[in-house]
Amino acid sequence: MKKCKVLLFDDFETLDVFGPVEALGHVPNLKIELCSISGGLISSRQGYQVSTTTFDEQKIDILLVPGGQGTRELVNNTEFLFEFEKILKQSRKILSVCTGAALLAKTNYLNDLEATTNKLAFDWVTSLNKSVKWQKQARWVTNDFIYTSSGVSAGIDMTLSFISDQYGEELAENIAKRMEYIWKKDSDNDPFAIF
Amino acid sequence: MKKCKVLLFDDFETLDVFGPVEALGHVPNLKIELCSISGGLISSRQGYQVSTTTFDEQKIDILLVPGGQGTRELVNNTEFLFEFEKILKQSRKILSVCTGAALLAKTNYLNDLEATTNKLAFDWVTSLNKSVKWQKQARWVTNDFIYTSSGVSAGIDMTLSFISDQYGEELAENIAKRMEYIWKKDSDNDPFAIF
Repeated sequence: MKKCKVLLFDDFETLDVFGPVEALGHVPNLKIELCSISGGLISSRQGYQVSTTTFDEQKIDILLVPGGQGTRELVNNTEFLFEFEKILKQSRKILSVCTGAALLAKTNYLNDLEATTNKLAFDWVTSLNKSVKWQKQARWVTNDFIYTSSGVSAGIDMTLSFISDQYGEELAENIAKRMEYIWKKDSDNDPFAIF
Repeated sequence: MKKCKVLLFDDFETLDVFGPVEALGHVPNLKIELCSISGGLISSRQGYQVSTTTFDEQKIDILLVPGGQGTRELVNNTEFLFEFEKILKQSRKILSVCTGAALLAKTNYLNDLEATTNKLAFDWVTSLNKSVKWQKQARWVTNDFIYTSSGVSAGIDMTLSFISDQYGEELAENIAKRMEYIWKKDSDNDPFAIF
C-alpha cells in the first residue's frame, strides 16, 4: 500500500485539500492520511475541523501541500519551515495547490523550476522567491518531482493529470467520470491567467 | 448570521461535501457547520475523519445532504430516517449531491418533484421512489425548496447556481473566480447523462 499524506495547518482552504483527495481516493492501493505538524484537530478557513495525525519518519509516496489563509503566517514561521523541509525530504512526489506554493517557495525545492500558484495571490507568492520561474498563465505546471497548481479548483485538474502521468490516462479518465468532473487536460488553458 | 448545516454520516463522499462547502464558505454572513445524528468524529469514504456536532432544534437556512457509500445502509435505517425527517422539517432550503438524493427519496420530500442523482447510481436511487420525476439528463435540478445534483462535482455547479438564485449572479461569479472554478451554468448540459 502506497501512502499519500496531506499537510494540513489551521486556515487551510477546503477545496485545495478535498478536490485532490477525492481524485486520489480512487487510486487503487493508495492510502490517504491527513497530517499536521502537531497532530490533533485542525481548522479549515471555512470553520470546521478535521482530525490529523503527526508525520513519522517513513517515506511519503505523494505529499499534498494545500494553500489557504494559513500560509500567510507559516511563511514566516521558522519552526514550521524546519519541519516542512524534513517532510519534503521524505517525499517522492510533491503536489501543491494554490498558495501551497508559497510554502515550497520558502524552501529551495522550487529554485530554478517552473511553477505556478493562485492568480489572485500571485504577487505575494512570487515575491517570496525570485529564483523560481513563476508562470503567469498555467492551470498547473509539471516537473518530475513537483507539480504546482493554480488556485483551488485547478488542483483537481492537476491531480487528474498527475494520476494520468503516474498510473495511466485510462485510470485518470475513469476517476474523472466517477467524479462526474469535466477534466481540463490542457495545463496552458488558464482562464484565470494574469496578463 | 445564517446557518448552513451539512449532514454527515460514515462513508460520505469527500467532494460531495467539500465542493459545496468551499463555494458556500465565500457567502457573507453564512456559518457552515458539519453535523451528524450522533455528533463526534465521522469517517469519509476516503478514510479520514472530520469533527461534527449534533443537530439542535433551530431553523436551518441551508441543509446540504451529500451522497456516498454510506447512503446504501442509511436508506434502510429507520432510526436514521426518523431523525432525518425532523431535520428536513427544520430546513428552509435543501441541497443534495449525488446519492444524497437517495436519502431524500426515502422521505416524501421529492414526491412529484423533478430531481436527479449520480448517473452511475441512477438505477438504484430511482428504484427507491417511483413518484419522483427523475431526470436522466440534468447536471442539477432546481425546485423552490430543494435542489438536487448529479454526481460529486455537479454539486459545485449546483451550489454556485443556488448562490446565484439566492444572493445574485455577481456573487456567484466572484466566488467561482476566487475558486478558479470553470462554472457550468447550464443545468441541462450533462456530459454524464444516460440515454
